[in-house]
Amino acid sequence: MTDIVTYEDVVDAANRIAPHVHRTPVFTSRHLDSISDATVFLKAENLQRVGAFKARGAVNAVLSLSDIEARRGVATHSSGNHGQAVAYACAIRGIPATIVMPENATPVKVDAVEGYGATVVFCPQPEREHRLAEIVATSQAVVVHPFDDHDVIAGQGTASLEFVEQVDSLDAIITPIGGGGLLSGASAVAANLGIRAIGAEPEIVDDSYRSLRDGVRYPATGDISVGDGLLTGIGQIPFEMLSRADVEILTVSEEEILLAMRTLAERTKLIVEPSGATGVAALIRYARQFSGERVGIILSGGNVDLSRFGTTE
Amino acid sequence: MTDIVTYEDVVDAANRIAPHVHRTPVFTSRHLDSISDATVFLKAENLQRVGAFKARGAVNAVLSLSDIEARRGVATHSSGNHGQAVAYACAIRGIPATIVMPENATPVKVDAVEGYGATVVFCPQPEREHRLAEIVATSQAVVVHPFDDHDVIAGQGTASLEFVEQVDSLDAIITPIGGGGLLSGASAVAANLGIRAIGAEPEIVDDSYRSLRDGVRYPATGDISVGDGLLTGIGQIPFEMLSRADVEILTVSEEEILLAMRTLAERTKLIVEPSGATGVAALIRYARQFSGERVGIILSGGNVDLSRFGTTE
Repeated sequence: MTDIVTYEDVVDAANRIAPHVHRTPVFTSRHLDSISDATVFLKAENLQRVGAFKARGAVNAVLSLSDIEARRGVATHSSGNHGQAVAYACAIRGIPATIVMPENATPVKVDAVEGYGATVVFCPQPEREHRLAEIVATSQAVVVHPFDDHDVIAGQGTASLEFVEQVDSLDAIITPIGGGGLLSGASAVAANLGIRAIGAEPEIVDDSYRSLRDGVRYPATGDISVGDGLLTGIGQIPFEMLSRADVEILTVSEEEILLAMRTLAERTKLIVEPSGATGVAALIRYARQFSGERVGIILSGGNVDLSRFGTTE
Repeated sequence: MTDIVTYEDVVDAANRIAPHVHRTPVFTSRHLDSISDATVFLKAENLQRVGAFKARGAVNAVLSLSDIEARRGVATHSSGNHGQAVAYACAIRGIPATIVMPENATPVKVDAVEGYGATVVFCPQPEREHRLAEIVATSQAVVVHPFDDHDVIAGQGTASLEFVEQVDSLDAIITPIGGGGLLSGASAVAANLGIRAIGAEPEIVDDSYRSLRDGVRYPATGDISVGDGLLTGIGQIPFEMLSRADVEILTVSEEEILLAMRTLAERTKLIVEPSGATGVAALIRYARQFSGERVGIILSGGNVDLSRFGTTE
């Protein structure tokens, strides 16, 4: 399995992407410490370029393309942060990007993708794979997958690599899990240090939890969660990596996710999207198992609809 | 006028309060840079202890009390951040605090004050001065005024002192103005460096703008603004300091303040209260006068009602 990402791959990725991504700050919260009896550190990937850790993986993948590949341009489908991340990465490299987006994508997301100079192709959500295949057949563009890609995972791992550089002696790193790229990257870093990587997943879309428990890669449940970045099923590479590393997944309810999001807003003044608050929800729900530990949580993104924020004061 | 605060007073305050306040981070925003044609730096006092710069002034004032004064305890009235700040400061010093609060104060604010061990006394808002006077007559408590106090202003000035340490070669520092403590402190620091301190004020409560323009200390307009921390009239000491320093005030509309608040949320993922976003509103409205400059803006606080945030995803 050459697709397995190693600690060295993550270090290489960190050097490659450093000029193009933020070294995001780490926050603490006495409130979270007191309700968990742990010492909690929050890595603010909501402050990352494009508002999410996805910038790391996309930039690493696009910068890792050969010149011949790069000339063909990059294509992907995304209704969310990955599309912006790929558009941003291609702008850095100066190559064409085509992003397939759902017809009902919010204008602010479409504007962001187009703002990086990418071409947006709209299609009904169920036809996105088919439409992407057509584009690739015509343009020969390289597809950068949002998580089932060695270079993307290595890039996502740089969030955890920075985290352990910024905070000494962490016992565990908690990240949300959707497709599993961020958690797989964390796992590669954690294994090297002998610490735990832990996934946090909405229980209504708990395919990763069940897949790792049963050793069977289940598809996405098809349900909807407030953690709308986490609806996808676990990828093949993440499934292999997380199974081998025996990574634990903690599931949380919808209400727990929203409470975590609100708690972060009130206590840290940070805007974190529901998906991004899932790790904090897991800390709160499973606080007893972190008692006395130093726990790092990646706040994975901050792209939430704020159109009504501040309008009804 | 021994009440005038000097640069040296601010330096003394910084040393005094350093163990008890956060050295808040400075953020940048390409979006704000591009819409203003300035290079913009945002000092995140919304991430300060108690969620606002007020912690600085209150801690400096309470730590500056003589032991004899301190034993009498501290009292003040506040519906907002100053009450929390005084409660926090008194907890540090281990002395009693009494905060007069309006009967309709939000439970979260009352809880925060009580959480620091302070006594809350409720009374109708128009009777607050009278009720405070009664408490002082009985207890001999020292009153820490929210802005018309030398030590409070020196404490607030430490936000600007840190700012110029963190960012080289600022041309100007913009702060909101209500009573004028934060801006007066900024003025003391700015004067020492030969840079400009500028106030940002809601035009519906523009008594500071008119007071400095006319050389007459006008009372508060009595109107209400979304910038609910800025309704008060300019204090006597701030009026003297800002008049002498010839500090400019820029006024902004209610809509401009809310747009600034939303822009900060969307672009920097920071929760800033309307009062705290007033400086950014001024930058946007008066962008042409900052063209090509390096502009520091203090985001003064982040205490906004978030009870509905994240509930309707």
